[in-house]
Amino acid sequence: MRATGVVVEHNPFHNGHLYHIKESRENTGADIVIAVMSGNFLQRGEPALVDKWTRAQMALNGGVDLVIELPYVFATAQASDFARGSISILEAIGCSSFCFGSEQGTIEPFINTYELITSQKESYQLLIKQFMQTGMSYPKALNEAYATLTVNKESSSYVDLSKPNNILGYHYIESALQMDAQIQPVTIQRIVAGYHDDIEEDQSIASATGIRKAIFDDASIQEISQYMPLSSVENILKWKSDIGVFGSWQQFWPFLRFTILRMSTNELSTHAEVTEGIENLIKEAAKTSDTFEDFMSVVKSKRYTWTRIQRMLTHIYTGFTWTDLHHHKEPTYLRLLGMTQNGQKYLNENKKNLALPLLSRVAATKDSLLSYDIHATDMYMLGIQSRINPIGMDYRTPPISI
Amino acid sequence: MRATGVVVEHNPFHNGHLYHIKESRENTGADIVIAVMSGNFLQRGEPALVDKWTRAQMALNGGVDLVIELPYVFATAQASDFARGSISILEAIGCSSFCFGSEQGTIEPFINTYELITSQKESYQLLIKQFMQTGMSYPKALNEAYATLTVNKESSSYVDLSKPNNILGYHYIESALQMDAQIQPVTIQRIVAGYHDDIEEDQSIASATGIRKAIFDDASIQEISQYMPLSSVENILKWKSDIGVFGSWQQFWPFLRFTILRMSTNELSTHAEVTEGIENLIKEAAKTSDTFEDFMSVVKSKRYTWTRIQRMLTHIYTGFTWTDLHHHKEPTYLRLLGMTQNGQKYLNENKKNLALPLLSRVAATKDSLLSYDIHATDMYMLGIQSRINPIGMDYRTPPISI
Repeated sequence: MRATGVVVEHNPFHNGHLYHIKESRENTGADIVIAVMSGNFLQRGEPALVDKWTRAQMALNGGVDLVIELPYVFATAQASDFARGSISILEAIGCSSFCFGSEQGTIEPFINTYELITSQKESYQLLIKQFMQTGMSYPKALNEAYATLTVNKESSSYVDLSKPNNILGYHYIESALQMDAQIQPVTIQRIVAGYHDDIEEDQSIASATGIRKAIFDDASIQEISQYMPLSSVENILKWKSDIGVFGSWQQFWPFLRFTILRMSTNELSTHAEVTEGIENLIKEAAKTSDTFEDFMSVVKSKRYTWTRIQRMLTHIYTGFTWTDLHHHKEPTYLRLLGMTQNGQKYLNENKKNLALPLLSRVAATKDSLLSYDIHATDMYMLGIQSRINPIGMDYRTPPISI
Repeated sequence: MRATGVVVEHNPFHNGHLYHIKESRENTGADIVIAVMSGNFLQRGEPALVDKWTRAQMALNGGVDLVIELPYVFATAQASDFARGSISILEAIGCSSFCFGSEQGTIEPFINTYELITSQKESYQLLIKQFMQTGMSYPKALNEAYATLTVNKESSSYVDLSKPNNILGYHYIESALQMDAQIQPVTIQRIVAGYHDDIEEDQSIASATGIRKAIFDDASIQEISQYMPLSSVENILKWKSDIGVFGSWQQFWPFLRFTILRMSTNELSTHAEVTEGIENLIKEAAKTSDTFEDFMSVVKSKRYTWTRIQRMLTHIYTGFTWTDLHHHKEPTYLRLLGMTQNGQKYLNENKKNLALPLLSRVAATKDSLLSYDIHATDMYMLGIQSRINPIGMDYRTPPISI
């Protein structure tokens, strides 16, 4: 059986994802689609709308055959580490290709860009540093450095790194080439609207951000049903009826605020991604902010992207430190969150060829990478606040099977 | 003006306290009564029912002329440190006497007991150690050691240290004698029922524990009015209407649980009073306990008193470590929480004779002892959860003045 891999968050699963899975299968001629999916905290540094098992269920209903968890360490990391963790896992589970959506839509420019940047690594790094010294955020400085590097080049030969999905795609390619992977990159044109758009009428694909906003605003089922498969709508409704609230910083703010204010600024600065004195601003902002929105309006600055700040907050919330981050560079297991019958068949056929141990049930573990995933689930469920017996879900929840 | 001092928590102020204040004034012939009062966390290791300003107000209405805050470090400490902090403050503010309620009712046996224990210090300590090795809690071992020490003595000459107020009284005497204080000890017979009794009918004095239980159980105003001065009832009703909830571990449990579960057991063990591996039990119990009652039923053992465990929890909740505890042995200021006109007159007359600086307003401070008080108020107000702008009350709240 041939497998293609996709890197997903499915927060929540919508028609754009459905299209991505279907196209991935068709474009690569794969028999099965394997998704590496973030757990309960996401790359934008925020809690998922619904937990990882509910999102795995949506993925399986939407055409994915196997869902493997991207460990917390990579799922909440900046793009290059996120990509390295994801591609390592898809390689380890034996995918012959991985397929990502991009604004670019063709692979060649990604390869060209990788080779250009690699060949001019030193001047590129220097440019980034210089732009950051003018007060730019890292992504903005990177963008400007790249523009400088490609200023006299044929623009269609290189990827446009101002587009969010192109950036992620670039890091996937970089990871695959750097690890000298067997897995082959494939990209498909993204057809979704911009990342931050609200839902617009007369279209069947909206951004996950827009859909989340609609869900938080208690939009009608009819409204969100336009943009999500029926099975996803059902999963959202079941979560709402079982749990009552959705994961968000708004919901988790009392705990996050308490945690920030309980600690000294010295302690705050030990947490991953917290740098350059921003712990002082975080502490001061938490003092005066009764809501997460108030807090972010104080902390947000040109120096840091919203996403970067949220990643700091994720690590403060879960207690994940710089030391924890520096000690974990590669995935050490394949954690199975869900499978179809075809997915199970693939595992049976390939279980001897997997490059990392497959975990379908989690027992008491000494794998520190896995212990962060288990801990992150506990912290997520405490934030949700409405579940009896919220601790240890990872030990009690078997993979979703459809 | 002659001043007498009392050591109080007033949680909440009731008829027993009213009697204590009145008797203290009469017995010592003092012109004013000065109370050293715990802040928002108490010696039993729990959050106060209502905040320190509300309790100061009750005290002033009940006959106290000056309320000075006992700093967090002493207010939440074991009896000997609690007593040392309290007596130091009453000495520093110039009280000629201090007056405490005891089951004993006369001073001489306290002095005799202090001299006996001091003269046989080594064998007493050894006995305590031996009893603890049999699995007894510290207070129980101390009791047994003391019984051994006094076995052939005339019992009426020594204080009965199995009674809770006698124990506290003993530590007051010990503190005063050890610091060679000018302040003279006075005791009055306690007329209240046992500490843990519920409210009983046909009496006008009930324990604070019983009254708190009645308040948590939403007892009628008529019921609690039997046991408290009208002004205290009014303060309780005002708090209830302004804030909505009372301070308690039941109320604070979501934050305490989150804080325990977020940390590693190693981090837990850095907090003051956490010893001998109890951090493991605390962590495991927090995993399975949706309520504070469930939690305590798992953690409670013969080795540790309820109070001792609650003190650990207080320090975990506020982030107060062994290092913090070991660096603060003596009060460094007199923090004014409230005063009557007579109290103010006393301060005006004596301001040059005070042995420590008087703080009536708190500005940004480098006094770490004071910073714990300010931090404890913030943590208390976050636990209460119902106040807009809960942080920095210490900076914004002037002393209560009546």
